[in-house]
Amino acid sequence: MKALQCTENGVALADVPDPEPTPGEVVVKVRSAGICNTDQELARGYMDFRGVLGHEVIGMHAGKRVAMEINCACGKCATCRAGGRNHCPTRTVLGILGRDGGIAEFVRIPEENLHILPDTIPDESAAFIEPLAAALHAFDEAAPRPGDRVCLLGDGKLGLLTGLALAARRGDLGRAVAVGRHRDKLALLEAAGLDVALESEFSEAGFDLVVEATGKPAGLARALAIVKPRGTIILKSTYAGVANVDLAPAVINENKIIGSRCGDFQRAIDVLARGVVDPRPLISARYPLADAARAFQRAAEPGVLKVLVLPS
Amino acid sequence: MKALQCTENGVALADVPDPEPTPGEVVVKVRSAGICNTDQELARGYMDFRGVLGHEVIGMHAGKRVAMEINCACGKCATCRAGGRNHCPTRTVLGILGRDGGIAEFVRIPEENLHILPDTIPDESAAFIEPLAAALHAFDEAAPRPGDRVCLLGDGKLGLLTGLALAARRGDLGRAVAVGRHRDKLALLEAAGLDVALESEFSEAGFDLVVEATGKPAGLARALAIVKPRGTIILKSTYAGVANVDLAPAVINENKIIGSRCGDFQRAIDVLARGVVDPRPLISARYPLADAARAFQRAAEPGVLKVLVLPS
Repeated sequence: MKALQCTENGVALADVPDPEPTPGEVVVKVRSAGICNTDQELARGYMDFRGVLGHEVIGMHAGKRVAMEINCACGKCATCRAGGRNHCPTRTVLGILGRDGGIAEFVRIPEENLHILPDTIPDESAAFIEPLAAALHAFDEAAPRPGDRVCLLGDGKLGLLTGLALAARRGDLGRAVAVGRHRDKLALLEAAGLDVALESEFSEAGFDLVVEATGKPAGLARALAIVKPRGTIILKSTYAGVANVDLAPAVINENKIIGSRCGDFQRAIDVLARGVVDPRPLISARYPLADAARAFQRAAEPGVLKVLVLPS
Repeated sequence: MKALQCTENGVALADVPDPEPTPGEVVVKVRSAGICNTDQELARGYMDFRGVLGHEVIGMHAGKRVAMEINCACGKCATCRAGGRNHCPTRTVLGILGRDGGIAEFVRIPEENLHILPDTIPDESAAFIEPLAAALHAFDEAAPRPGDRVCLLGDGKLGLLTGLALAARRGDLGRAVAVGRHRDKLALLEAAGLDVALESEFSEAGFDLVVEATGKPAGLARALAIVKPRGTIILKSTYAGVANVDLAPAVINENKIIGSRCGDFQRAIDVLARGVVDPRPLISARYPLADAARAFQRAAEPGVLKVLVLPS
């Protein structure tokens, strides 16, 4: 089959063997696979990944439309038994760690990872289930309380989805502002009900909660500069490379810095089914699988948001 | 009076004007002032501090032996009213921020910052109230739960005090191990009931809670390497300079990183009064105030723990 492969020579469409499911796995015929910043970072060496890219995947299995959880866990270890399947130490992760992803005609995945999609969610919304689950999860460990001042840093794809998640719970917050570098992207969040500001013009501080979704090493220092004493920073950015950061403010101000990764798929599906969030304005382009390499390049261009590859 | 001053030319004993208390303040005749790593960092430029050093101070006021809280707060702002006096945005901090410290004959301090010492606490234990309060505070935001595996990184002065605080609650923990670079320092914690290990020989991981008290930029990366997924790191280190740290593990493993600074003085006094912790084995040397500059140099030497300056 055709698939978008990440090798030591770069990212390219390739002919690869059809996936062969192991016991407990099924093969899904891919309908849509989104390109994520993490894919760009994988191409730069993050996680040392080699294989088929793509972890934002929906497709068809046994006549049903399905989304698929990306963490494939053993289900038996102490971590899994304690409900921490996303942290299973022997896990594979779709298109990220030890397992081919879904920018391809077909993808294999444990059957238990499938979520059947309600008919009310159009394909182009369903394409966002994985990143939307991650965005909604930003507020799990540090749910903002009524009256809290919340600032979101970053107006990339994950930043915007996190902004939509924040807008959905905007009601009782004291302030909810998104800070980014692009007026047009911020406009999507303004339309959803957030206050927005250009980074170059933003000088507020004293936030109870700052979500760092810039995808850049400098994001944490900026978050530390605007969070209030004893306030919380949620780290959503992953990138290849190190941050040079003065951590003394975190100690002096006794801040909490909390890493946040994957979220609950079923919740994201429910949020989409109820129409609470509409991610479709984030789609910048759609490509057939034959043009997946071009799609990958396009997704890396400044100003481009979600690029979908549509194999079938 | 004589005082140990930090200026742009370095740290030296100097003749300075006697302190003149403002309304609400009193003058305390200093009995003992400990030298802390933070003082060494201040001398290297941390906090841009200029003035008299010393924030681990006990002395005499109105015929009573007293310890003194180091954060001098306005008491009126929203932060103070919410109980966050240690984070008052207009605070001064004894010997650290905008206020002369107590490696001197006398020191001025708000009267409300004083704690009268019970007679049962000898001077040489009372000298540790400030850093012991900070050490005990390490476990406030992330109290270890029964069965938890806890690792302390760092066997400097604050590390050892934090180790003694950890040993005092060792009972129901699954593991409590201190990791450092000095067999003789670690022996103090072993005697208190902790397991200990040399950093060069330590290869355990999977800790629920890691306390980073190395005082070094590399400490956080080491903590991230040994904390378990969703586990917590307490940051106790402050130093001048930046850490170069790959934060991706914190995001992937959804760790919490929590800064921790000053603690409750009364609790530290109670712990000393009950004899739960005996910090006196940490005293390496005692100097009269006339030799405070030599004491400061000595405190910076490898292997030296607490150095006390005894003005009276």
